[in-house]
Amino acid sequence: MYAMHGETVHFDTRRNRLMLLDQTRLPQETVILSLSKKEEMFQAIAQLQVRGAPAIGVAAAIGLAVLANESAETDKAAFLAECCANAAYLASARPTAVNLFHALDAMLETLQANAHESIDTIRQSLTARALALHAEDVAVCQKIGAHGATLLESCKTVLTHCNAGRLAAVKYGTALAPVYAAKAQGHALSVFADETRPLLQGARLTAYELCEAGIDVTVICDNMVSFVMQKGLIDTVLVGCDRVAANGDTANKIGTSGVAILAKHYGVPFYVCAPFSTIDKTAKSGADIPIELRDGSEIGEMWYREPMLPAHAKTLNPAFDITDHSLITAFITEKGILQPSDF
Amino acid sequence: MYAMHGETVHFDTRRNRLMLLDQTRLPQETVILSLSKKEEMFQAIAQLQVRGAPAIGVAAAIGLAVLANESAETDKAAFLAECCANAAYLASARPTAVNLFHALDAMLETLQANAHESIDTIRQSLTARALALHAEDVAVCQKIGAHGATLLESCKTVLTHCNAGRLAAVKYGTALAPVYAAKAQGHALSVFADETRPLLQGARLTAYELCEAGIDVTVICDNMVSFVMQKGLIDTVLVGCDRVAANGDTANKIGTSGVAILAKHYGVPFYVCAPFSTIDKTAKSGADIPIELRDGSEIGEMWYREPMLPAHAKTLNPAFDITDHSLITAFITEKGILQPSDF
Repeated sequence: MYAMHGETVHFDTRRNRLMLLDQTRLPQETVILSLSKKEEMFQAIAQLQVRGAPAIGVAAAIGLAVLANESAETDKAAFLAECCANAAYLASARPTAVNLFHALDAMLETLQANAHESIDTIRQSLTARALALHAEDVAVCQKIGAHGATLLESCKTVLTHCNAGRLAAVKYGTALAPVYAAKAQGHALSVFADETRPLLQGARLTAYELCEAGIDVTVICDNMVSFVMQKGLIDTVLVGCDRVAANGDTANKIGTSGVAILAKHYGVPFYVCAPFSTIDKTAKSGADIPIELRDGSEIGEMWYREPMLPAHAKTLNPAFDITDHSLITAFITEKGILQPSDF
Repeated sequence: MYAMHGETVHFDTRRNRLMLLDQTRLPQETVILSLSKKEEMFQAIAQLQVRGAPAIGVAAAIGLAVLANESAETDKAAFLAECCANAAYLASARPTAVNLFHALDAMLETLQANAHESIDTIRQSLTARALALHAEDVAVCQKIGAHGATLLESCKTVLTHCNAGRLAAVKYGTALAPVYAAKAQGHALSVFADETRPLLQGARLTAYELCEAGIDVTVICDNMVSFVMQKGLIDTVLVGCDRVAANGDTANKIGTSGVAILAKHYGVPFYVCAPFSTIDKTAKSGADIPIELRDGSEIGEMWYREPMLPAHAKTLNPAFDITDHSLITAFITEKGILQPSDF
């Protein structure tokens, strides 16, 4: 982790590499990826070696800068066209999280603003913008943590779904940032982590980073959420998100909407933690947010010693779902604790 | 399967063996267990080689008869004591499903009623009672199917949780009996099967038996139930159960209560299918039903190529939960479609 400075996503500007902590190998192995080719970057995003809405945004921005620095083009028009094509290519790696598009749009904005400069100056401005987006993610997550911690003062246990911790961002994370902030203030919380099938981000990643941070964590299967809420074991739910529509409908990891309905049923507050940029005002409601459907082999084959389904059984594998705004107590952002009317 | 006559639990009276289709090996292998020792029978129930509330009741009854027939005791008092001890031993294999205790109570009733007879006559009466319980399970499930099918006439898709199909009973099952009955009447339904973590009975068993029966089945992860209901893909929920309290609170596989809350939220009818004997009037409410807690290794280790949790992460692994009676549309039993006031 030394090479990463404790970060999930890092820009090695000296060697011009996008550095990623490979999240498909956790918790078994700490593997650092050092990427300079666009196909590797696309694969890293599509195959979830880097995942989490903030992290993939920052990774794509750094990736674009690395590719611009690596480019052999000497003709400026061709160089600009190559940068734009690379941005479009990386944007196509995953459809749901808006952060990926935001970060690439920010990079293209810098590209346009400097289009009259030399190729070298454009490269420097892209590198600077990627570093700024990286630093901004750290600062935003710290603020989410500070705001969120104020809601947890009388709280002992938090339930979270999937991973929206430090592994989902550069550092600190979104949903877990308030837990880290509370710990720094001397208030130790216990966390229940849904394992989050099919890719087990809760079991593999949330449990990993909380264990590493010395925070008490208990992993449960996704279908045990009702049980622990019924037993009164959960004071608050904190989740991250991939995109929020203008009306507050929220796309997040598959299963989030179910947790929200259970939280409402049992009277447990349900907070969505996200950078303000995750709010996509061009989407009126959740119906306007595309939901990624992934391969069914993730349900029946991945992780297992042997296929766990009969050979001809069909599967359905949506990666996200939409949580209706009526189920969300509030949004915890770097700008404070908001309602959709504040967007 | 020939030796089993298409049954999940079978009494081979010629060789005096409890025959079980080993459900821990499905869908990979069809392994038939032939048991005559009490320790094997206890293990088969505790380790879920036979599972499903009706099936474990019938298996324990047959097991008790097999043990009586195998007994070397020639002193009647010692023989009777041995039978009672065997019943208590098998009853301790799992705590939640009431069918196990009902079936063993029925066997002990036969034992008491024949206590004045010869050891050989007692053996014959126990064998006859076990065969009767076995036949009764088949008949009860057929009636549940017939009653349930009347509710499915305008229904196209059913969601079910865990496995309460033919593999959970001698034949036909409880929750899937209406689906089989509808098919026999020419009404083909599609089934969505929750995979049902941690032991994947939905993926491994429900998908297996429905594929085998030529019924359309789609496996989803447990956290996708809200998604498919939100999309309008589910017309009806059918589940089995392990014990119903006098007020209608229902213990069933962990996750059932969550599905019921989601069904209520989305306006989908939620039916519990069970033999009338599953109703335990000595339990006033769900609070009186013991919930089995199983080993956490089922969450972090079983099925996987490598441990899927950090070494020191804690787990919580309840095998069942309680669905509040207010969430249950009706109970489908062999006596008809009932409300708790009909118990």
